[in-house]
Amino acid sequence: MSELVYLSRDQVAALSPEIPQLIALLEQVFREKAAGRTEMPPKIGIHPEKDAFLHAMPAFLPALRAAGLKWVSAFPENRGRGLPTIAGLIVLNDPETGLPLAVMDASWITAKRTAAASASALAARHLARPDSRILGILGCGVQGQSHLEALLALFPIREVRAYDTDEEAGERFATEAEARFRVLAARVNDPRKAVSGCDLVVTAGPILREPHATIRPGWLEAGAFASLVDFDSYWDRAALREVDKWCTDDLKQLEHYKTLGYFRDVPPVYAELADLVTGRKPGRESPEERTMACHLGLALEDVALAGHIYREALEKKIGTWLPR
Amino acid sequence: MSELVYLSRDQVAALSPEIPQLIALLEQVFREKAAGRTEMPPKIGIHPEKDAFLHAMPAFLPALRAAGLKWVSAFPENRGRGLPTIAGLIVLNDPETGLPLAVMDASWITAKRTAAASASALAARHLARPDSRILGILGCGVQGQSHLEALLALFPIREVRAYDTDEEAGERFATEAEARFRVLAARVNDPRKAVSGCDLVVTAGPILREPHATIRPGWLEAGAFASLVDFDSYWDRAALREVDKWCTDDLKQLEHYKTLGYFRDVPPVYAELADLVTGRKPGRESPEERTMACHLGLALEDVALAGHIYREALEKKIGTWLPR
Repeated sequence: MSELVYLSRDQVAALSPEIPQLIALLEQVFREKAAGRTEMPPKIGIHPEKDAFLHAMPAFLPALRAAGLKWVSAFPENRGRGLPTIAGLIVLNDPETGLPLAVMDASWITAKRTAAASASALAARHLARPDSRILGILGCGVQGQSHLEALLALFPIREVRAYDTDEEAGERFATEAEARFRVLAARVNDPRKAVSGCDLVVTAGPILREPHATIRPGWLEAGAFASLVDFDSYWDRAALREVDKWCTDDLKQLEHYKTLGYFRDVPPVYAELADLVTGRKPGRESPEERTMACHLGLALEDVALAGHIYREALEKKIGTWLPR
Repeated sequence: MSELVYLSRDQVAALSPEIPQLIALLEQVFREKAAGRTEMPPKIGIHPEKDAFLHAMPAFLPALRAAGLKWVSAFPENRGRGLPTIAGLIVLNDPETGLPLAVMDASWITAKRTAAASASALAARHLARPDSRILGILGCGVQGQSHLEALLALFPIREVRAYDTDEEAGERFATEAEARFRVLAARVNDPRKAVSGCDLVVTAGPILREPHATIRPGWLEAGAFASLVDFDSYWDRAALREVDKWCTDDLKQLEHYKTLGYFRDVPPVYAELADLVTGRKPGRESPEERTMACHLGLALEDVALAGHIYREALEKKIGTWLPR
């Protein structure tokens, strides 16, 4: 075979699995990871602008016969340019010969599914109260949107509070949420209102080395669960210390980021997501616990999902075939 | 702009600069590197098979407005399968927005030009005797071929000795060399004959963590220059210690490889290639010195060259345009 297939953002979206199938796939990824049967070196990257980066994220999952890399960019300034802040490509390779099999747009996988399913669906299932009703979203971009969708599918949410430093973005988010889902949604102009009184809190702003630390101690309620999609950027150190169980998806990567100057003075890690998925450690154990999952993003998720989408593309004959 | 361009191996080859222009470009790369104006983290990778790897190689050169990554595979077993041992893709990104601009085949750049120009042309120009006449090549694959071409363009070579563990490959290499160039070329069945009596030696076999150490002490002549394309795989430790000036293209990467178990007990580094190019350190200083350059491969070279080829592609309207 001397060709490889290219899949655009729309084609990837059309080939993507439904949420239950996606969650099953990601649970398999975390079981493989927990068993030590995966390879995933800590990300490396380049930084062409302040607070912007491109990250190389290779991963290999023998059991899924999936090998490849995500090369993903995060450029916060793009927001003001009408361009996506997060973009990228995934390259999938034949694990027996190394040859590239597919190149596909990474933004859909990154934004809509991987983060949503792993940060929210998987972590929240183990860490949030099943009766969670009020959701606060801080950062109303694509990630905020995907988390809203995933959490609505899992919890009896009746109220959404949307905060964004860009008031228009918050307003649009709330309006769209009300229109698309049977849920009460409103923009809040004070970030505290998207935290205090909420059962679920998602922070999904830009990732900063120096946290803006908007969320202060005393804001997060007893019994609440917070999902951190933007590292610890939103959280004051003292607010983090109020958390009973601080979890992450990859301990090794967290340590690596610490050596780069991120995650200064964060609480000790209670469990990796893989520990919760395999039952090696219990998730929430009482309705009063404050729990938190910090989502670094695993190349394993991206590459496993890309493998699934590639096989679907072959079967459904979707994509552009390119000569090597 | 909502599209990116794909360039196949043949298209990349058709767009590539001639050797003098390529060398000028690479000299600029090394000057930028020497001045500390580049970003290139040590490679990371995955290892789906024994002695096989896929490496992620990001680089950013502000002065050349080039940002991107090479994702390259080396699968030694492919040789027996009639597939290229080295393959891959380069993704080029807009340094202002992070968005992907181009995806192109990396094998041509890796095999024919980057390695040839940087390992041989640039290093040999500073480290080999200008009157070098006899060239020994150990490992007669694509890299051996590209080094032959580059060295023929620089030195008055009249004899080529080709060694390969696969006799047929050695034979074919010698036959083709005689047919294509005005040069005497012969396969040798003893590796020593491709080292002893030679002015230039290129080792271009598979890269192994445990060197096969075929080349023994006493083989490399006084006054010879050796270019190591396959790490230190071919060299006995005592043979390495006979070298007067041991150079590499990137000290940081060499140190990184050492932490991974490669390059055990190699000589201290005399100079980085950038030091030679900028004149910060002298190259060869006498006709008797034994000199050596160990070529790790720099993402900077790949990404700078990819930037050049991308601009040529736009100008000449070559490539397949793909929707993002």
